[in-house]
Amino acid sequence: MISQVVKPAQVLVLAGTHGNERNGPWLLEHWRRQPEALQRHGLEVALVLGNPAAYTANQRYLERDLNRCFSPELLADSSRNEADLQRARQLLTCHGPDAESPSVVVLDLHSTTSAMGNSVVLYGRRPADLALAAGLQAELGLPIYLHEADASQTGFLVERWPCGLVIEVGPVPQGVIQAQICRQSKLGVEAALAVLAAAQRGCLKLPDELVVHCHLVSLDLPRHPDGSPSACLHQALQHRDWRPLRAGDPVFMDHCGKEIGLSLPSDLAGESVWPVFINEAAYGEKGIALSLTRRQSWQVGAEWLPALGAIAFQLV
Amino acid sequence: MISQVVKPAQVLVLAGTHGNERNGPWLLEHWRRQPEALQRHGLEVALVLGNPAAYTANQRYLERDLNRCFSPELLADSSRNEADLQRARQLLTCHGPDAESPSVVVLDLHSTTSAMGNSVVLYGRRPADLALAAGLQAELGLPIYLHEADASQTGFLVERWPCGLVIEVGPVPQGVIQAQICRQSKLGVEAALAVLAAAQRGCLKLPDELVVHCHLVSLDLPRHPDGSPSACLHQALQHRDWRPLRAGDPVFMDHCGKEIGLSLPSDLAGESVWPVFINEAAYGEKGIALSLTRRQSWQVGAEWLPALGAIAFQLV
Repeated sequence: MISQVVKPAQVLVLAGTHGNERNGPWLLEHWRRQPEALQRHGLEVALVLGNPAAYTANQRYLERDLNRCFSPELLADSSRNEADLQRARQLLTCHGPDAESPSVVVLDLHSTTSAMGNSVVLYGRRPADLALAAGLQAELGLPIYLHEADASQTGFLVERWPCGLVIEVGPVPQGVIQAQICRQSKLGVEAALAVLAAAQRGCLKLPDELVVHCHLVSLDLPRHPDGSPSACLHQALQHRDWRPLRAGDPVFMDHCGKEIGLSLPSDLAGESVWPVFINEAAYGEKGIALSLTRRQSWQVGAEWLPALGAIAFQLV
Repeated sequence: MISQVVKPAQVLVLAGTHGNERNGPWLLEHWRRQPEALQRHGLEVALVLGNPAAYTANQRYLERDLNRCFSPELLADSSRNEADLQRARQLLTCHGPDAESPSVVVLDLHSTTSAMGNSVVLYGRRPADLALAAGLQAELGLPIYLHEADASQTGFLVERWPCGLVIEVGPVPQGVIQAQICRQSKLGVEAALAVLAAAQRGCLKLPDELVVHCHLVSLDLPRHPDGSPSACLHQALQHRDWRPLRAGDPVFMDHCGKEIGLSLPSDLAGESVWPVFINEAAYGEKGIALSLTRRQSWQVGAEWLPALGAIAFQLV
């Protein structure tokens, strides 16, 4: 009888998945020189620069956004060989759940020009991700953006690991390191490791509720027939991520100074919506001026903690 | 006897000299649709996108920083043909002081990731520039950075026109349009036109004093032997442009969290210095983490107003 050997797994901490988000890579260097805070919980952590070529070029990506390269179809399409897609395959080969030294949890560090503060982005409703996010929210109070059901954006990195989330911090310009942004990212990662270690030891306690901001829709700038923007974000909305909006609230302003109010579909009329990623520099090319979410309080599911525990149990 | 005909000249308003500074170009579009505020003073204004190719690419420049291309040597060097240098020559051919439709004053709109607020940058001490800046400071209270005697940075655009200055507004990330940044730039340009129109009519009154921040030195980040930064800007200095510093004040923080204090040459020990362009994203590649200035109050020179008047008299 052959017993299956489960390889001891690592926690993958990725930074610089977008090459012009420089605060995460700065933190990697900090932890390499001062590893105590990472080692405190006894977990083995792999510190990896997400897209070294884009980092060297100080660009978000070279040919294709690395954090949109992880759809199974793209990864398997042997006719596609953009540099960033090759890097996606390499990350999975070296640090994926089936790698020689596997990682089963990934923490992907991002920064944004939007005033997201210190926040968490989840992709879908996997119980282990929700448990990790709930633990983080209990520890630090971080707001959570649940990005789901958005056909226009797919192929996110964390989806290819059994458990993972994005720690998203801002506002900070692209290409700039700010000590406060680094510190917030550091708090997020160290708290996530504490949650994972508690889950591994079987002593993690989750709160009763999780507050999530569920993706509804993304809004593009109004545009001229030639595709150029005919309006910019309204000043009243700048740096107001996570603050509720209602139909009619000013969102854009055209070249003549005319305000354009928020228009909501009839099923949302009268409700509040919560904006995220307001005026993120990199989303212009994606046609996203901001995204709208619905804020909800969820009962923490009975299956969340066991799901995270099963994964944490595989960690070194 | 042949009398020399002086061609009626324009004021050149340039935006997007750096292609990823998007607020100025937004304003150009605003003024094209709502020209009243520009036309109010009866001056003829040429609205020009500085570096259209870099703007399309949403990059600061293509091959060479356009705002470092305007040294006479570079412009005359026929062996050099970088796209941005060709654009520099084209701007002079089409809008320079000797063009078919000449401009004799240039207002060059820039934005920065540093918290410079709404400010003016001068290059050298030309009396007409100083008069225009003094008028602007009297009107709006803008702080002035006098960038001079810096061998490491030369070839600025405004130096090739008889009179000109940079209106520099921040903080704003590269690639992002923020309504407040646009409005501040707009205020600056419209006030400059009001000053020029008053000079043209001979009714400009200058204040007695001009407060200027004169360039002393630029500081690079501390670096490892391999050239990579060994420290980042200290958090206490972020967004503190124009606030005085003294020797010993924290300026950098290394990977281990150790503070590095400001070290000043002996002739400045005991003095205050005023920092500008703190943590500007585009200056990383230039090895500039911030620049230090000395704040001075100058008596307005008797020759300033006539110098500006002589130029303004050539305006349409």
